[in-house]
Formats: sequence, structure tokens, C-alpha cells
Amino acid sequence: MSKILRINMSDLSHKWESVPKDYETLAGRAFTSAVVNREVDPTCHPLREYNKFVISPGLLAGTQAPSSGRMSVGGKSPLTGGIKEANAGGLTGERLARIGVRGIIIEGAPPKDSKDWYSVVVRKDACEIVKTNDYAGKGLYELIGKIWKDYPVKPGIIGCGMAGQRLLKGAGVFGNNPENADPGRYAGRGGLGAVLGSKRVVAVISDATGGKAPEPKEKERFDKGQKALREALDKHAVTGKLTNAEGKPFGGLKNYGTNVLQNILNEAGGLPARGFSSGRSDTAAKISGEAVHELVDKTKKKFGDAAEGKYAHACHTGCVIRCSNVVPYENTGKLHVSPLEYESAWALGTNLGIGVLHDVAELNRLCNDIGLDTIETGNTLAMLMEGGLLKYGDGPGAIKALKEAYEPASPLGRLVSSGAKTAGEVLGVTRIPVVKGQALPAYDPRPIRGIGVTYATTPMGADHTAGYTIAAEILGIKGTVTDPRALNKAELSKAFQASTAYIDSTGYCLFIAFCVLDNDAGFKGMTDSVSAFLGKEIDVTQYGLAILKNERDFNKKAGFTEKDDRLPEFFRTEKLPPHNVTFDVTDAELDAVLKGV
Amino acid sequence: MSKILRINMSDLSHKWESVPKDYETLAGRAFTSAVVNREVDPTCHPLREYNKFVISPGLLAGTQAPSSGRMSVGGKSPLTGGIKEANAGGLTGERLARIGVRGIIIEGAPPKDSKDWYSVVVRKDACEIVKTNDYAGKGLYELIGKIWKDYPVKPGIIGCGMAGQRLLKGAGVFGNNPENADPGRYAGRGGLGAVLGSKRVVAVISDATGGKAPEPKEKERFDKGQKALREALDKHAVTGKLTNAEGKPFGGLKNYGTNVLQNILNEAGGLPARGFSSGRSDTAAKISGEAVHELVDKTKKKFGDAAEGKYAHACHTGCVIRCSNVVPYENTGKLHVSPLEYESAWALGTNLGIGVLHDVAELNRLCNDIGLDTIETGNTLAMLMEGGLLKYGDGPGAIKALKEAYEPASPLGRLVSSGAKTAGEVLGVTRIPVVKGQALPAYDPRPIRGIGVTYATTPMGADHTAGYTIAAEILGIKGTVTDPRALNKAELSKAFQASTAYIDSTGYCLFIAFCVLDNDAGFKGMTDSVSAFLGKEIDVTQYGLAILKNERDFNKKAGFTEKDDRLPEFFRTEKLPPHNVTFDVTDAELDAVLKGV
Repeated sequence: MSKILRINMSDLSHKWESVPKDYETLAGRAFTSAVVNREVDPTCHPLREYNKFVISPGLLAGTQAPSSGRMSVGGKSPLTGGIKEANAGGLTGERLARIGVRGIIIEGAPPKDSKDWYSVVVRKDACEIVKTNDYAGKGLYELIGKIWKDYPVKPGIIGCGMAGQRLLKGAGVFGNNPENADPGRYAGRGGLGAVLGSKRVVAVISDATGGKAPEPKEKERFDKGQKALREALDKHAVTGKLTNAEGKPFGGLKNYGTNVLQNILNEAGGLPARGFSSGRSDTAAKISGEAVHELVDKTKKKFGDAAEGKYAHACHTGCVIRCSNVVPYENTGKLHVSPLEYESAWALGTNLGIGVLHDVAELNRLCNDIGLDTIETGNTLAMLMEGGLLKYGDGPGAIKALKEAYEPASPLGRLVSSGAKTAGEVLGVTRIPVVKGQALPAYDPRPIRGIGVTYATTPMGADHTAGYTIAAEILGIKGTVTDPRALNKAELSKAFQASTAYIDSTGYCLFIAFCVLDNDAGFKGMTDSVSAFLGKEIDVTQYGLAILKNERDFNKKAGFTEKDDRLPEFFRTEKLPPHNVTFDVTDAELDAVLKGV
Repeated sequence: MSKILRINMSDLSHKWESVPKDYETLAGRAFTSAVVNREVDPTCHPLREYNKFVISPGLLAGTQAPSSGRMSVGGKSPLTGGIKEANAGGLTGERLARIGVRGIIIEGAPPKDSKDWYSVVVRKDACEIVKTNDYAGKGLYELIGKIWKDYPVKPGIIGCGMAGQRLLKGAGVFGNNPENADPGRYAGRGGLGAVLGSKRVVAVISDATGGKAPEPKEKERFDKGQKALREALDKHAVTGKLTNAEGKPFGGLKNYGTNVLQNILNEAGGLPARGFSSGRSDTAAKISGEAVHELVDKTKKKFGDAAEGKYAHACHTGCVIRCSNVVPYENTGKLHVSPLEYESAWALGTNLGIGVLHDVAELNRLCNDIGLDTIETGNTLAMLMEGGLLKYGDGPGAIKALKEAYEPASPLGRLVSSGAKTAGEVLGVTRIPVVKGQALPAYDPRPIRGIGVTYATTPMGADHTAGYTIAAEILGIKGTVTDPRALNKAELSKAFQASTAYIDSTGYCLFIAFCVLDNDAGFKGMTDSVSAFLGKEIDVTQYGLAILKNERDFNKKAGFTEKDDRLPEFFRTEKLPPHNVTFDVTDAELDAVLKGV
């Protein structure tokens, strides 16, 4: 029987609540967005007592369904001022699901002059709020290693690092890898790490001792569904592991990780290079998924069993897609950073004109250690370049600037942790790539209009995962590619946004979408597994739209209007090479996307 | 015959236009707000080509009417994202009026990679756009001295300093003193200096050679009106120069300047001390108008004719109120800064816990030199104190931090120039005293609710001059003081906002309000002079409301909602000593203020 854990940081109390009737089918993003919209004053300050930090494992987390262990966090975003959900793999989703926790709501805040830091330890039917001042102010590699020792039960761990503890808007929520104490699993976006920091919570530690896998309501149908999905995933060119006739790997997330996109987007002319000033980069290949694959193979050969580099690494228990990687140091074979995702390699590499793989890996490692979202921070570093404090291409300079974040009294350190909008404004930059205050990801909206429509209209602020039209516009669905330059993308974006909201709630990784859009049996496997788990038919679109409605309601009450559903001016006035196009989608087309939702 | 000068910085062209029929009665704020609302895309980026920078002398500027030479600047504010008007004395209003310029509209922008800086020189029926790269990057005391020599015709000079040239949001628009080249006359608020910087215009130089005083349509009535007003001003306790039975000065702007308010507000418990954490300060008296008066007298006695300290100094030609001062160095008697206004002494003094007069004067001098609004910058320095980079009371530390702004590559220098909201967010502060992104002035809204209602609801962002209910709540009108703690202040604020918009358009200094509210003959003198000048009856309230309507229309189209008409959360949750009250005005009361306008 699932329960909700409500924690009040004003008096350090907690209580267990049963799941309300109208929340019965809600988990993951559906849960966090429902709670935030129902319980949080939309006009509240996001970093004071009236905001809430909500955690919820996906619906199928902890079950046998493939790649279904993801977890959502939510709250009012200090970056966007609107509702936010961010999700990640790691251990926490599965751990909470196994002890029957549908969600955790952290509310209130210690008195404003409080100097203490806390951790929340969740066990089966038990919760402890522990004073852990020794956890604060530490790099996250050190912290998570300490927690892993302090709690030798292989717990799920999420929390905030220095950036979040200082209430800075670039702060993500870290999580640990499924097998160890590596803080590389980020629910990165929206500055939600700072919301946790404002509650003075460093870590939420989930101990699944005594727990068990959740039981589907219709076991047979569930098993059949999840197996059908698993088969489809294994076979698909993106989600399976494929080799060509000569036995060499090709395509596939297992071979190259998400960073397979680096070369694909570059080829398409939609890879934003040097602060969104070109759609092509001559350094992209050097930091691509292929380059990492090659490096891993090389170090394996050189260092044998001592080599720690990996591809086809899983981000959470039960993931069959295994798109994560471990980037090794070339000279030792030891772990440098894990994972190096496409978005991070783009944000901290191509976007900054940096083509040295170990510089990019180091920037990513620093983000992980400080507790920063890589997408936001890469864009923030680009603002330092636009604003004349750094030069494009200067990897060592960017590393030095980011290391300033370790120094609490460093103005530059605070600046690099504050997100692109704020940093850009401090530096007098007028080309700040943000929507609703959140920085753009790794697809330029000018040559690929559908993703621009998503950036503009999702309640989440610029976010590719909110409606990943790239799947249709670049990768194609069932062999058909939607013209990326076409302007009528309202329906496409809406469909992606709705189905994404559904997937973000199930615990399934969004990457199953590559497969289920191509494969009807896989799609049915997905929907069957969800409906069978709940014992209730769930319509993907209706379920997704209901979530979007909650989110848009919240934003409207927070003061958002259609004027917030726009891209920055420079995307409409500056042509992007090589296609030399601006973002020409009309305001009317944008307003049509979620009209009436 | 008045004309409008339209300057296009994209191609460095200009043209003269006749004043459109429906602009015939508009000048000052009425003119700038009408142009901005009609011509500027409300959703445009405030620091790119689609924004406009508008200048307009008040209606009666250049005439014999007393204290009527003020000038407005307007545009879309980079600080608030909404419409903005700021006004000041100085020479420019009178100079432009004498050569028949109703307004200057600077639009477009040089290409984005342009490195050149320009000045606009306006003469009778002539305009020149001059490349003046040697004017850029200089401290304003040096710059304005140079211009004063380059153009030996005693021109009006307005422009932007380093802060504006770097597009930073704390940037004000400086102007020169009527008698010399001192850059202390600021149209400070809203970051409009950065708008001018975005046009790559350093200075607008107005040469009135060959000009003459504008002619009223009904000369006799005009003369009678302006004389009646002058008599009323001379007699009034606030605007006149009064001595008591013993021949000693008391009250009065001529004796103590606006900074006479320092002790009055402290006494009332409404003086925001140390980042709005108390309504009383034990250091206020040391930096009050009385203290400056004493210092001036002391240095006059000591240094005789060499002493430069002054009170009863006029900010523009023809001012009879003469509230400006010159603060001398104690050890030399030479000018340290001019003027030191109440708002500046509060922002850079009491608000920072700094009670050393020469520290406060130095901070003000630095703001003037760098091109920063003192209210915004004082609040920004308070954010450094809230955020742990400085300690309250540390004058030398604050001076050192502000001097960083001279260094283009200093992150701290950019931060102190960026306004309180941005700096506060960079530093993780959740007590940021701003409305619509603009920092609060020197009256705490918790014990004085009417001014809080104005802060919240004026289209200008937090701004005491937009509806100075302090006149009724603290100083009293016709002997009656409106209870400052009463909650029903919608009507009071609306009346002040409307009449202020009228006065801001006439060229009259807002301080005539102290007198005309108390004195019916003075009030009639004011309205008669305006109506007689235009040859048309002008109703104060209707005229003012029409301006507010333009401004609210613009903001609405820019995406503002009633959610933007709110004070920050901490004013509702943190009690202010000594009265221990929060800001309890309801949202409904706030929404009622300008409803239907």
C-alpha cells in the first residue's frame, strides 16, 4: 500500500498520509505537478518557506518493467518562477517504490537564522530527520562517498550540493549511480537543487531494507506488456545494441550514448555552436559519443581490468537501454566522469567552442561535484564568453572560472552558479538563450522549428525533454522524417508534450519513445504495462494533457501569460548558418499549441 | 513651433517631424510614455534595436514659471521589463525647450559588432551625430568636463556612463548641473542609462544658441498663474526658506534639502535600516540634512570664499525651491559630491548601516562617476551584505566594492552595477526589496502603507515619486495627517499617482506638490499656468490618468498581470521594528488602485 511522506522543515516533524483517491493513478511527474499545483501558492517566493520540494518515483519503479526506475522531483522553480519537474535515473526511484513511498513532500523551512543542515532518511514505514552539518559545503563526490559509508545499505541518495545550499539558480538535484556512490545522476533542471537547499536539506537517503517489488493489479497482462516492450527495445536501432555485417557497432545508445547526437546534429546544421552563433562546429566530432567509445576501447586495451571506462552502462536498476557511459582519463584509465551525456558535452563543449574531450569531461565533473545543472552551467559559461570575461574555446579558462564556485566569497563563483539569464544580465549580454528564464538545450530552434515550439510553449521553460520533436524532425518515425524547417509544428509539439508527460510519470525512461513510436507492439507493451499495473485503462494523451493542465494552471496563477511562451528576440533576428534561417514560427502558431489545455 | 527630432542609430540618420495633433498637449512624461506605448514593441528586448530612448522637456521648461525646467527620459526598462519614465533637473530641459524641441526619439542601433560610440548634438533646427569614441569608458566627472570644454556654449548634457555603456541594469541617465559640468543630476531609475548605451550614444548635448523662451498661448493668465504659484512656494514651510523667532533655520528644503527626511522618517519608524530589517537607525542623524547643513556652515566659516559647500542650491535654471546641496570635504572645503539627496543618503547610508557622512558622500560620488542610480546601487550593495560578501556598516568595504565597477573584467564590478534583483539572486538572497525588478526607495511600506501601495501598483516599478503618499501620511496636508498604518490607501495612491503624472509632464518639480496641496491659490496658479500655456483647459486628474493608461497598456502588452503589482513576500511575513508590523494591505485593495485605468 503506497503512502505519502510529508515532512515539515519548520518544526522538523513528519507524518505518513494515505494516497488520496484522486491521486491513485498519479506518480512521477503526474504526482509532483499535481501536488505543486494543489498545495503551493503560485506567487510564493521559490526559495522561502511556502514552496515545497516534492519527490515521486515513477509508477512502475521497482517493477520488472524495462527501464522503468526513474524518479521525479518538483516544485516552484527559482529559475523560471513557474512549476517545474525534473527527473533522473539512479537508485532512489526503485528504493522508494520498494518501500511503498508514492511521494515525499518537503515543506516549510527552518527559521531564517538557522545555521543547521539536515538529511532526511526514509526507511520502510519510518522517517528520520537528522542534523548533518558535516554533510554541507562538501564536494559531492566526497559527500556521496561519505553517505555510502555512513549508510551501508546501498541507499538511494538525492540532494543538493554547494550551489543548492547557497540558493543559486543553476543548482540541480544530484542522485547516485545504481551501483555506487557517484553523484552523476542529475534531475538537473529548473534550479530545484536550490529549493532543497532552501529547506536546508542536503540529502534524502532512501533505504529499501525490508521492501519488495510493487505488485501490478493485473499481473499477467503486466508481464506480457513489459516483455513486449523489452523485446521491442532490444530490437530497435536506437535502443538496442546493434552491430553491422562486419561485427562493428553502429548507431545505438548502447554504443555511443546520447552523445551519438553530437555528429548527427552537426550534420543537420542544428548543433548550436559558440553561444548559438552557428549550427555547425568543427570541434564537435572530438567530443562526440564516437570519440568517447574510442577512448573507452583504447583504455580497455591499454589498462585491461584496471580500466574504468564504459559504454552501455545503466543509469538505474533494470535499465535495458543502457545509454550511460563512464569517461576514463586517457593516461590512467580511471574514471574521469560518468556519464558524459550529449546535452552536457554540447553545453560544456560545442557551445563554448571547446573541443578537448578531457576539458569537457572536467567541466562536467566539476558541475557534478558542485551540484550544478550542466545545461544551465554551459550556457552560463557561454555568457561569460559573450560578456568578455572569457574567450570561446578556452577550456582551461572555463575550468578555472567554474572552480571559483568552490569559494563561497567569490563573486565569479556565485555568477557561474546562477544560470544563464542572471549571469548574462550581469554581463550586459543581449543574446541570452533562455525561455522562462531557463537555458536552451542542444538543438537550435531556427533550423529545427518543432523543438523551438516546445522550448517556447512547455510550462517547464526551455527543455528538449518536454516534447522531443527531434525524434520526428531529425531521427524520423517509422522511416519518415518531418521537415525540420516547416513552420506548422503546433500539433507535433503538443503530441510530444502530452506523451512525454505520460512517460515522465510511468518511471519509464523517455528514450523508450524512440522505439515505441516506431513499433506498435512496443507501444502496446508500454500502455498495457501501465494500465495493467493500475488495473485501469490509461489513455496516453488524456493522461498527459491532464498533467500539462495542472502545470499551465499553476503558471497562469503565478502570472505567466502567452508573452512568456516566446523565444528570445535574437532567434528571430539573427540568421543561423549554415542554413541561414531565423525562427519564423508565428506567435499564433505558438499560442495554438496548448490552447484550451 | 515645437518639433520632434527622430534619430535612427542603425544608419546614423535623423529627421525633424512636426508634433502630431494628438501630441499637442503632451510633454515630459506624457510625451515619453505616449511615444513608448505607441511606437515600441512591448515584447522587445529592452537593450536591442527595437527599443527607443525618448527625451522630452517638461511643458513649461524654458518659461518663467518657477521650478519648471525638468526633463523626462523614457523607454522600455531593462530593469522592470515595462515602460519607464525618469526625470531630472539640470540644463537639458531648458535648453531643448528654448530651441523648440518637444522630444527626441532615438531608435535603432548600430550593427551588433559595431565598436564605435556616438554623441548627439542638438542645435536650433540642426542635429549632428558625432563619433566620439574618446567619450566612452570615462568617469563622468572627467567626461562632462571635457564636453563642457569641447562645446563652450554651456550646453545641456545628458548621457550614460560606464554602467550604461556596458548595458548594466543599475545605469541611470546623468545630467549636468545648471551652472557647471558636474554630472550629479540623475534621471536615475529603471536602468535607462543602459538603453542609451545600447544605442551606443554616450551623450546628448543640447546647445540653445539662438533659442528663446517658449511663448504661452495666453500670456497674461500664464503670468498671473506662475506668480501665484511662486508666492505660494516662497511662503510654504517645506518649499520656502524659513527661520524661527531667533533667526535660526527650521524645516524647509532650502535649509536641509530632501535629506531633511532622514530624521523625520527615523522618528516615524519608517526609515528602512540595514536592508529593510528595522524602521529605525542609530546612525541616521549623522548623515542627515541637518548634518550636511552643519558641515557646510562649518567649512564656510573655516575656508571662507574657498569653501564650495552649499545648501539652497538650484538643480535647474529658475528653480525657486533650491533643495539641492553641495557636500564639501571637511578638511578642504572643496566639493565632494553634489547633491546628496535623501534617497541617496538613505540608500548608500542608512540602508547599509553606514553612518559616516564622508563614506556616504564618496559612495554617491562614485555612483555619479560610474553612471549608476544611487537608489538601485545602495540596494545592490545591501544585497552584497545580505549575501555575505560585505558586512553591514562597512563603509570602506562598500567603497572598495563599488570601485570594482571601474574594472571592465571584474565580476564584482559588473554585479554592483546590475541592480538589486539581479545581484541578490546571484548571491542567493531571498529578501530582495524590489517591485517589478526595481529596488525600493527610502520608505518602508510596512509601517507606511500608502507608499507601499504606490510601490506595488505604479507601472514604474517601486518608485516613491510615482505617487508620494508620504506627503499625506507623514508630512500631512492642510494640517491633517493620514494614518500611515491604515490599510485603505487605494484612493490616496491613485490620486497621488494621477497628479504626479500630470506634474511630471509640466516640467514643474514634484516638490511643488508639498505646497499646492496645502494652498489653493498655489494649486490654481499651477493649473492656470499650464492651461494658459497651452490655451486649453487641462484637468489634472484626467490628464494624469491618461498617462497612466498609456503606461498600463504598455505593461499589459508586455505580459504584466496583477501578480506583478505585489510587494516581495518578506514584507508580508517579517515584522518591522519598532512598530512590529507587516505589510497587510490586501491584494484586492492593490488591484483596486488603478482598476479600469
